[in-house]
Amino acid sequence: MLPEDHPSPIIHRKAEQRPPRDWRTWLFGPPLRTADAPHQTIGKFIGLAVFASDALSSTAYASQEILFILAAAGSAAFGYVFPISLVIVGLLAIVALSYEQTIHAYPDGGGSYIVSRDNLGQSFALVAGAALLTDYILTVAVSISSGVAQIVSAFPQLFEYRVLLAVGFVWFMTLINLRGVKESGAIFAVPTYFFLATMFITVGSGLYKYLTGALGQVIDPPEIEVTQTLVTVTPFLLLHAFSSGTAALTGIEAISDGITAFKEPRSRNAGITLIWMASILSTLFLGISFLTGKIGATPSEVETVISQLSRTVFGRESAWYLLGISATTVILIMAANTAFADFPRLSSIVARDRFLPRQLFLRSGRLVFSYGIVTLALVASLLIVVFQASVNRLIPLYAVGVFMSFTLSQAGMARRWRKIGHLRPGETLKERGSTLKHDPKWAVKMVINGFGALCTFVVMLIFAATKFVHGAWVVLILIPTVVAFFLIVNRHYTTLARRLSLENFPGQPLRPGRHRVLLLVSTVHRGTWQALNYARRLSEDVTAVHVGLEPEEVEKVRQKWQIWGEGVRLVILESPYRLLMEPLLNYIEEVLTLQEPGETLTIVVPQFVPSKKWHELLHTNTADALRERLLSRPGIVITEVPYQVP
Amino acid sequence: MLPEDHPSPIIHRKAEQRPPRDWRTWLFGPPLRTADAPHQTIGKFIGLAVFASDALSSTAYASQEILFILAAAGSAAFGYVFPISLVIVGLLAIVALSYEQTIHAYPDGGGSYIVSRDNLGQSFALVAGAALLTDYILTVAVSISSGVAQIVSAFPQLFEYRVLLAVGFVWFMTLINLRGVKESGAIFAVPTYFFLATMFITVGSGLYKYLTGALGQVIDPPEIEVTQTLVTVTPFLLLHAFSSGTAALTGIEAISDGITAFKEPRSRNAGITLIWMASILSTLFLGISFLTGKIGATPSEVETVISQLSRTVFGRESAWYLLGISATTVILIMAANTAFADFPRLSSIVARDRFLPRQLFLRSGRLVFSYGIVTLALVASLLIVVFQASVNRLIPLYAVGVFMSFTLSQAGMARRWRKIGHLRPGETLKERGSTLKHDPKWAVKMVINGFGALCTFVVMLIFAATKFVHGAWVVLILIPTVVAFFLIVNRHYTTLARRLSLENFPGQPLRPGRHRVLLLVSTVHRGTWQALNYARRLSEDVTAVHVGLEPEEVEKVRQKWQIWGEGVRLVILESPYRLLMEPLLNYIEEVLTLQEPGETLTIVVPQFVPSKKWHELLHTNTADALRERLLSRPGIVITEVPYQVP
Repeated sequence: MLPEDHPSPIIHRKAEQRPPRDWRTWLFGPPLRTADAPHQTIGKFIGLAVFASDALSSTAYASQEILFILAAAGSAAFGYVFPISLVIVGLLAIVALSYEQTIHAYPDGGGSYIVSRDNLGQSFALVAGAALLTDYILTVAVSISSGVAQIVSAFPQLFEYRVLLAVGFVWFMTLINLRGVKESGAIFAVPTYFFLATMFITVGSGLYKYLTGALGQVIDPPEIEVTQTLVTVTPFLLLHAFSSGTAALTGIEAISDGITAFKEPRSRNAGITLIWMASILSTLFLGISFLTGKIGATPSEVETVISQLSRTVFGRESAWYLLGISATTVILIMAANTAFADFPRLSSIVARDRFLPRQLFLRSGRLVFSYGIVTLALVASLLIVVFQASVNRLIPLYAVGVFMSFTLSQAGMARRWRKIGHLRPGETLKERGSTLKHDPKWAVKMVINGFGALCTFVVMLIFAATKFVHGAWVVLILIPTVVAFFLIVNRHYTTLARRLSLENFPGQPLRPGRHRVLLLVSTVHRGTWQALNYARRLSEDVTAVHVGLEPEEVEKVRQKWQIWGEGVRLVILESPYRLLMEPLLNYIEEVLTLQEPGETLTIVVPQFVPSKKWHELLHTNTADALRERLLSRPGIVITEVPYQVP
Repeated sequence: MLPEDHPSPIIHRKAEQRPPRDWRTWLFGPPLRTADAPHQTIGKFIGLAVFASDALSSTAYASQEILFILAAAGSAAFGYVFPISLVIVGLLAIVALSYEQTIHAYPDGGGSYIVSRDNLGQSFALVAGAALLTDYILTVAVSISSGVAQIVSAFPQLFEYRVLLAVGFVWFMTLINLRGVKESGAIFAVPTYFFLATMFITVGSGLYKYLTGALGQVIDPPEIEVTQTLVTVTPFLLLHAFSSGTAALTGIEAISDGITAFKEPRSRNAGITLIWMASILSTLFLGISFLTGKIGATPSEVETVISQLSRTVFGRESAWYLLGISATTVILIMAANTAFADFPRLSSIVARDRFLPRQLFLRSGRLVFSYGIVTLALVASLLIVVFQASVNRLIPLYAVGVFMSFTLSQAGMARRWRKIGHLRPGETLKERGSTLKHDPKWAVKMVINGFGALCTFVVMLIFAATKFVHGAWVVLILIPTVVAFFLIVNRHYTTLARRLSLENFPGQPLRPGRHRVLLLVSTVHRGTWQALNYARRLSEDVTAVHVGLEPEEVEKVRQKWQIWGEGVRLVILESPYRLLMEPLLNYIEEVLTLQEPGETLTIVVPQFVPSKKWHELLHTNTADALRERLLSRPGIVITEVPYQVP
C-alpha cells in the first residue's frame, strides 16, 4: 500500500489510528481504537445521566436562590416561593417543548450556535456561541460550589476549606473527562439515579408527613443573612426572585447539543430523554419549593435549604439525612460533567468555522477534546477562587447567557418554520448544513418556538435588569469580549488565507537556482560525518563552518577535516572572545547579501539527541537558537540532522 | 572573502563580532566591540576596588562574629576579642605572603583550581573548584545580608523587610555585572575609597578619643542574645571565636584568580595590590576589634557593632554616623562583586575542562559570562531567603570552603617549589599549563607556602570541628555533591566523545542510497508551493501527505493539488476522528519499515512564521511535535520550510 506502487498521483487511505502509549495511558486509560468509536454512543438511560445531571441537580439550589432574594422582605415573604416556582415550571414546559422540536429538526446536534448560524446568520451565532461557552464555565463553577456547600452543611468544620475542595473537585472531573465519554456515562449513571431515588424519597416522605400532620418546623434554622434593610414586597422584588429561580432551567439545552452521542434512532431517543428530564425536574423542584415553605427553611451560606429539609424530614442523626446530602453533593459535582461534555464539543464546532484556534478542532489520542477540557477547568477554577465558591455570588453571572442562547436558538427555529411554510408539499430546500423539508404542521411549530423565544427573551431582560448591579453586568461585558475574540481570530485566518491564496498567483516556473548548504561543525565526530553526508546529498555546493573558540580545538578540527572532510570546503571563524552565535550570524548575513534571486540557503546543524533527558542541559541547541534569529528571513531553511548515541 | 573565491579547502577568518542590538542593549548597555577587549584591563587603583572589596568589607562583621561566640561566656569574655584578632592578623600575613608567591608563578591567573590541577592533580582541583564555587555564592549571601544589617541598624523599622531588601540588592548587582567589568570597576572605585576614608576617620577618631580619654561607653547597647546557658571560657570557646573571626580572611584569594584583568606588568601590579590590601585590612580589623572592647559593644542581629562604634565615636545624630553607616552598607553590597567577577570566570575554566556544562564556557554578547552570573544570583537569593538574611546564621557555612581552597592552593605551590628544586640552573620544565623554571630561592618559597598550607589546614579543621553542628556540616555535604556533579558531567562528555570518535571508524564509502522526501500538506497555498519547490530540490522522490480531517477540505486539497502539485504524488490519510499526529506517525512508521540500508527520509514541513508573536497560538507547530516523537529514530531528518506573510 505504499505510494510508489500506485500509478495515480493521488492516493486515498483511511488512516489507522493507534495513538502512542505513554504516561497518559496510565492516567487517562488505555487508548481507544477507532473501531470502538461508533460504539461510543449511549442509550436513553445513560443519556439521562450524562446530559441531564446539570438540569436535575439545579433542584438542589433553585428554591434556595428564590428564598435568598425574598429574604430582603423578611421571612413573611417566603410564602411567595411556591407561586413563583409554579411560574418557572410553566416556563420550563414551554422551553422543553420548543427544544424537543429542535432535536427532531437537527438530528446531527442542534445547539444554539448551529441553529442560530443556519437560520439567523453568523453574527447571531457568535453571540450564542459566546453566551454558551461562558455558561458552560459558570455551570462548572456553580455546580461544584453548590456541591461543596452541601458538604459544608453536614460538616461545618470544613467551611474554611471550601475553595480548596471546590478546585480539587474541578480537577477530579477533568481527569475523569479526559478518559472519554463512555466511561463517563457509566460513572455518572449510578450517582444520578441514586440522587433521583433519594430526592424522591425525601420529597415523598416530606409530603406524606405534611399530609398526616407529622411534618414539623426546622430546628435551629441558620440565621437569615440580610444584606440590606428590610423592604416591602414589590413587583421588582418578585421579578428578582423569579429570575433567581430560573437557575432551575439551566442545562435543559444540553441534550440538543449532544444528540450524536445517542443510539439510533437518535432524535427520537434524545427527544424522549428531554421530556423525561423536564418532567422529573418539574416534579422535584415544585416538591422542594412547597416543602421549603412549610418547614420554614431559611437561606444561608452555612447550611443549604436541602440540608434543612432533609434533617427536618428524617432528623439530623438519621442515616437518610447523610444519604440525601451525599447524593446531592455527588450529583452536583457530577453535574459539571454536562459542561465538560459540551464545552469542548462546541469549541470544536466554532473552531471548525475558524473563530477559535484550530487546535480546538483537533482530537487528541483519546476520543475527546483535551484542549477544550483543560481550558474549561482552568477558567472555572479561577472563578471559584475569585468568588470564594459562593453559589449566591456566582448565580447573578449565570443565567443571562443561558437565556440569551435559549432566545437565539428558538428564534432561529421559528424563522426556519416560516421558511418551511413557503415550501410546497414534497419540496425540499438545501441550505447551509441542513435540509428544509415541507411540513404540514409548520405553523403550529413556528408558534411554539416563537412563543418560547418571546418568553425566554422577556426572562433574559428581567434577569439583566434585576441582577444588573449584582454581577450580570460582568456577563454583559464578557460576551461581547468573547465575540470580539472570535472575530479577531477569524480575521487572522481569513487574511492569512487570502495572502497565501494561489489565485492569481503567477506560479513562476521552477528555476533551478543555486542551492547553497552551510554545515555547522563544532567538533569532527561520527555525528558530523553523518551530517556531512546528508549535506552533500542536498547539494554540490556545501561549505562547512567551524566557530573557533579555542586554538587547540581549531587545530584538531583542521587536522580531522583533512582526513574526514571528503574534500568539502571548511571555513573557520575565529572567535577569541568565545562568542558562538554572533560570528555565525555575521557570516550567514554576509552569504545572504550575495544571494541571487531564486537561490536557497540551507543550514545543516548536527544535533545530538541524548538518551537521557537531562543530558540536553549539557548541550547547546544551536539549531533552535538559529531558528529564533533567522526564521523571519525568507530563503533560509534550517535542518537538524540528529545523531543518536546508544 | 567568501569561501568560493578560495581554492584551498580550509579558510581561516577572524570573526567579526557585532552582537545584535535588542532589549538587552537597553538594559545592559551598548555591546562592546571586540577591539575594546584588550583595553578592558585595570590598574592597581581600580584593581584594589574591584578585587579587594570583599576582603576589606569583612572588617565590617569579623569583630562582631568573634563577640557573638564569646557572648556565651558573658560580657566578661569580651576582653579576648583583641588577642584573638592579633592571631588572625598573623594568619592573614602568612596567607598573603603565600599568595603573593602564587601570583608571580601564575601570571595567567592562579586560582586554587588551576594551582591544584597543575600540581596536585585533577581530583584535588575538583575539590578546590567545588569549595570555591560554594564560597563565591556564600560571599554574595553574607556580604549583602551584612550590608542590609547595617541599614537595619540605622533604620530599625526596616527590620521586617530585610530579606526582601537583600534579594533586591542581589539582583541589582546582577544587572550591574551583566554590563561588563570595566564599568563595574568605575562603579566600585568610588564607594571602596569612600568606605576606606570613612573607616579610617572613624577608627582614627576613636583611637584619638581613647588616648585623650574622651571615648565613652555605648549608650543603650542592644541586649546580648544568648542562645545557651552561660559557660566558662574554655579553649574550645576561644577556638570557636577564633574560627568565626577568620571570616576576615575571606576574599583574600580573589586577586590571584583575576590577574589577567590587571594592566601589564600584571603579576607585579597584582602582587602589589595584594600587599596593599592585606595591610589595610589588618589595620582596620585590629582597630575595630580594639575599640569594640573599649566601648563595651555587644553583638546583636538588631544593631551591628560598626553602628555601635560609629555612634559612640560621633553621636547618633552626627552626620558622620550616617556617613559611616552608608559607606559600610555600600561597600558590603559592592563586596558581592568580587564573587560576581570570579564565579563566572572559574565556572568557565571548569567548563573548559568539561566538568561543567559547555554553555558556561561560552561568552554572551557582552564580555562577561552571563550564565554563570545568573546561576550565582539565583543560588545566593535562595540562601538569603532560607537563612532570613542573618549573617550570624550564614557564617558557619562560609569559611570551611575558603580554608579548604587556601590549603589546596598553598600545598600545590609547595609541591611545585619542590619540583623546581630538582631543576639545574637554567633548566626549564614544561608541565601542563605552566612552565617550571629554576629558582635559587625555591627552598624559602617552599617553606613559606608549606607553612601557609599547614596553618590554613589547621584552621580548617578547627573551623569544621567548632562549627560542625552550627551549619558547617551542610558544606561538608555540599562540596562532595558538587564534586560528584562535576564527575557525572565529565563522564557524560568523555563517554560521548569516545562513542562518537572517528578513530577505528570504518567510514563506509558514501553510497548514494535512496533519499525519500515526505512533504506535509495541510492546505494548498503559496507556502505549500514554496515548500514543494524546496522538497523537489532535495530529491526526485517526493511524496506529499495530507491528513484529511474534513471531507470538504480533502476535496479542496485534491483539486488544488491537480493544478499546483507539479505532478508530485499526494497521499491522503483520512482521519475521520480528527487525529492529526497519529495517522501521520503510523504512515511514517510504515515508510520506515521498508527503508533500505543507507536510505534517508526527510520530512519537509511548511511552517508559518507569524509577524505577530501571539499568532503562533493560532497555529499548530507540527514540526516541533514531529521532532519530539521522531528525534530518537535514526535516519529521519525533519526540515521546516518557513513561509513569511508580510
